[in-house]
Amino acid sequence: MNNTIELLSNHTSIRSFTDQPLTEEQRDAVFKAANQTSSFSLLQAVSIIRVSNPDLRKQVMKLSVNQPYIEKAAEFWIFCADFNRNHQIAPKVDLNYIEYLLIGSFDAGLMAQNALTAAESMGLGGVYIGGVRANIAELTEVLNLPKYVIPLVGLCIGYPAGEKPGLKPRLPQSMVMFDNQYQSLDEEKLEMYDQQMREYYQDRPVKAPFTVKKVKGWKDHIEDHLERSKLPFMLDYLNKQGFAKK
Amino acid sequence: MNNTIELLSNHTSIRSFTDQPLTEEQRDAVFKAANQTSSFSLLQAVSIIRVSNPDLRKQVMKLSVNQPYIEKAAEFWIFCADFNRNHQIAPKVDLNYIEYLLIGSFDAGLMAQNALTAAESMGLGGVYIGGVRANIAELTEVLNLPKYVIPLVGLCIGYPAGEKPGLKPRLPQSMVMFDNQYQSLDEEKLEMYDQQMREYYQDRPVKAPFTVKKVKGWKDHIEDHLERSKLPFMLDYLNKQGFAKK
Repeated sequence: MNNTIELLSNHTSIRSFTDQPLTEEQRDAVFKAANQTSSFSLLQAVSIIRVSNPDLRKQVMKLSVNQPYIEKAAEFWIFCADFNRNHQIAPKVDLNYIEYLLIGSFDAGLMAQNALTAAESMGLGGVYIGGVRANIAELTEVLNLPKYVIPLVGLCIGYPAGEKPGLKPRLPQSMVMFDNQYQSLDEEKLEMYDQQMREYYQDRPVKAPFTVKKVKGWKDHIEDHLERSKLPFMLDYLNKQGFAKK
Repeated sequence: MNNTIELLSNHTSIRSFTDQPLTEEQRDAVFKAANQTSSFSLLQAVSIIRVSNPDLRKQVMKLSVNQPYIEKAAEFWIFCADFNRNHQIAPKVDLNYIEYLLIGSFDAGLMAQNALTAAESMGLGGVYIGGVRANIAELTEVLNLPKYVIPLVGLCIGYPAGEKPGLKPRLPQSMVMFDNQYQSLDEEKLEMYDQQMREYYQDRPVKAPFTVKKVKGWKDHIEDHLERSKLPFMLDYLNKQGFAKK
């Protein structure tokens, strides 16, 4: 087991930060690591908006389910699927196919994860903010994003304050990785995992705005959360930005 | 600069592998690193199909633009957006919202990247195969994927054979990361990058099936490639799998 694997296998999201900023060198190292990430056919269809202006940061926080660590983190980077560059180079290509959305969102995930890993390797911590999509049309305006660009996920980066949270248990390997053929849900293993999560949530209850009721286990969490995740305005918004019509 | 940042900043895709398999320990380490990746609201909406059966691997290769390294690599893992687990826990939730597709594809990217980073940290190499989407309906059948599961990207992992390829130049920071507001394309910087890529492609020409003509620079590459990436059948397929209708 090497350092890197140790780091990845012990990842927990950090939502509490000190005031210490990153040095320019640290920031550049995080960017450089992210920028060398694999890119589907080298389309390079991901851009980052670094929200450094304090007023804008507050505004973005309000649009993103008011999560206070967005304002507090030393850095807040928003990873966007960006086909605007490609479009300017090849304006005749109709980009309204949903495949481009898959490329952009998957590649944004690859790049964001390298940014977070690079940050964590320097003793920094971070958390992803899917909540940037909660008011995505307003955020798009505020960040001046043109057609063919959509903000997908934010990343808070900073020096962790307080104790490192304990590892959050994940589904066991046999429920996540399958040999050659998909395997349907194993009820017995699910119960075991659910029990593990009951114990976890007992020590560390889920708080608002992430829950509307007291969550007991993972099944309970899914039932509580899945419905509220759907964002019914998203397809209209994506179509307006030039994505996913066909 | 630490080991991990060094590793990420020097990433190149490996498409040429020796016959040496991974040990079970290595495989487990890669899985464990991937499985601890952040997950949107802990939905854990990603699964991996590990294609170990040689006949199936050949079949998958044929469905994935016939890229020979799919067959040759020690490991081939297909990262899927998987809401089937969630669906079984909360069957009343209508999953046909495109937001779930965004969650699944972004989170699959995060997880895949941690798998690749873990592999690279042990001296292994890999390459992503977006080509698994070229015949996605057939692949879905072959892998026995139920509704609410879609294969997004494959990952070849193995011991690199031959010399490590040189770094592929990326767009400069000023074209990829913007302060507070999106910046439109800077033609001058684009020309400089294009010139860099002309030199790169001169030493290492792009081969079929990835091009239909001789690519000269990055702009030329985008013009050549963007149109052919669109996969017009994708929206119908996704709708059939229970995704992205609204």
